[in-house]
Amino acid sequence: MKLNTALYGLGTVGGGLVDILRARRDALRRGEGLSLALRHIVVRDPERERSVSVDASLLTTDHDAPKADPDVSIVVEAMGGIEPAGTVVADALRAGRHVVTANKALIAARGEELEALARENGAMLRYEAAVGAAIPILHALPAVLAANRVTRVRGIINGSTNYVLTRMARDGLAREQALEIAGERGFLEADPSADLSGLDAAHKLVILARHAFGRWLDVADVDREGIEAVTAADIDDALRRGERIKLIADAARHGDDGLRLRVAPTALPEDSPLARVDDEVNAVELETDFAGTLVWTGSGAGAHPTGSAVYSDLVEAARACRAGREAASA
Amino acid sequence: MKLNTALYGLGTVGGGLVDILRARRDALRRGEGLSLALRHIVVRDPERERSVSVDASLLTTDHDAPKADPDVSIVVEAMGGIEPAGTVVADALRAGRHVVTANKALIAARGEELEALARENGAMLRYEAAVGAAIPILHALPAVLAANRVTRVRGIINGSTNYVLTRMARDGLAREQALEIAGERGFLEADPSADLSGLDAAHKLVILARHAFGRWLDVADVDREGIEAVTAADIDDALRRGERIKLIADAARHGDDGLRLRVAPTALPEDSPLARVDDEVNAVELETDFAGTLVWTGSGAGAHPTGSAVYSDLVEAARACRAGREAASA
Repeated sequence: MKLNTALYGLGTVGGGLVDILRARRDALRRGEGLSLALRHIVVRDPERERSVSVDASLLTTDHDAPKADPDVSIVVEAMGGIEPAGTVVADALRAGRHVVTANKALIAARGEELEALARENGAMLRYEAAVGAAIPILHALPAVLAANRVTRVRGIINGSTNYVLTRMARDGLAREQALEIAGERGFLEADPSADLSGLDAAHKLVILARHAFGRWLDVADVDREGIEAVTAADIDDALRRGERIKLIADAARHGDDGLRLRVAPTALPEDSPLARVDDEVNAVELETDFAGTLVWTGSGAGAHPTGSAVYSDLVEAARACRAGREAASA
Repeated sequence: MKLNTALYGLGTVGGGLVDILRARRDALRRGEGLSLALRHIVVRDPERERSVSVDASLLTTDHDAPKADPDVSIVVEAMGGIEPAGTVVADALRAGRHVVTANKALIAARGEELEALARENGAMLRYEAAVGAAIPILHALPAVLAANRVTRVRGIINGSTNYVLTRMARDGLAREQALEIAGERGFLEADPSADLSGLDAAHKLVILARHAFGRWLDVADVDREGIEAVTAADIDDALRRGERIKLIADAARHGDDGLRLRVAPTALPEDSPLARVDDEVNAVELETDFAGTLVWTGSGAGAHPTGSAVYSDLVEAARACRAGREAASA
């Protein structure tokens, strides 16, 4: 079965997805009998040079082109930012199209509303790539939650700040030097302020908390401190005490029915598992009543790790499309 | 919807499952509208003292009692060993009943045949608890595999030997002392030879390889060395070189279409992630083409971690039962 997809955004994530779509094309056909065709790629500037080459006839600057095309079944949103991404996602869900996105800012801000929209329209909304990039944490959580009450979820969920803190600690770099190298390596957003201020980690923490505790909180409810004030001297002092400073995102049950969400630079004993998570790697640690402590680590940034999570959601959306069509024709 | 379950075996795993069934009863009813009732508990000795108390009228020594009861929908096999467990599982699948098991020896030996039997009879066969206990690795793999080719899966998948090696390294204990403490802590089987010889890890590696590479291998194909020959002097030498000895299970692609499976004590640099996995904790490391390296860690033994994985499979089996009944009545 052939399914047509519209991709919004051909930056790092969109480009990574295109690579994986190509690499997995034959395996998907053999394994699932599915074929995923890109019908539209909506970009801001069709003339821009890109690391991935695509058929120029697919490129459009018109956000409404996929909407007007009745053959599009699945929409992948990889633009980032709250608007126009939010309108693209909401319109697609309203049209009953399945949506896959990597957009943590959007899901943290409007996840509850978009989930409801998906439900009302029989559409699927998936965003595995929004938290921990390559780590399939949202896929793994339901199996854990079936048997467990989660008491805390905690982790290193911003790759760029972890890279900066790692280079400061390991190589004695000043924050500005480490930032510059992170930028060269492609680990920073064009505007790195959301990384440095802990806002990006706060977005992801809100999403993690939704899946671990079943409740949407507001990003403004996250008690947040970034790494802007962390100096080389702070890092040295910590090293002398046998500690490593990490930007830790932490959501824990609090009192009878409360949750406390916090993002802050935190000194951890150097032999604790999270202290050992270095460079752009992310980690998510779950505390549960029966399964004990579970930890996932994996690449938290980059075109292919992020594209891998998007692609895996996309395959699920494609399976759901097929199931829907088969049910309709039965 | 109420679903009746037969449990074979009320040892560590069965007892852990009973605890979780009780703890999650209300949540399962509220969340899923499902109720899981234990109808039969098949044990060897009904008089034996147990850590978990159950209604004595449920206990039976008759393996065929659940078979003769048409109201049983799901069978949980927690006896261990290849027979009579294999007959219990095969008979249940032939009767179209869903089966959940924690039995790595059975699945490693007869997984291919039992999978086929499940398929032919429209039954579900699940065994998340058989590998890495609390780590939901079999649940997480499909999401990773949708987008990735796995090149290697490697890990520490035997909790008892990891506990023994950890105590030898950390506390300078002789192997026999460490073994004795592991036994007191409940981390050893009554007959610990399968742990020490690496056979238990080989069973789990065969299952991991099936899920990572899509192919069943024979346990006899695993190149295997246990920890029987590891001495305190070996561990000391490794520590002096900055290394830790771990019992590593390793399955890697080899040549065009081959797989190489190996279990052996392995010296790892002390700052490598697997070297830091201590006590009874397990870890599974996956190398992939797009997602990079993913690592899962979690408790690899114990009543509740193992029971948690069994329970989560059981809930899936219950959902499948309901879907089947709804489809039949539609």
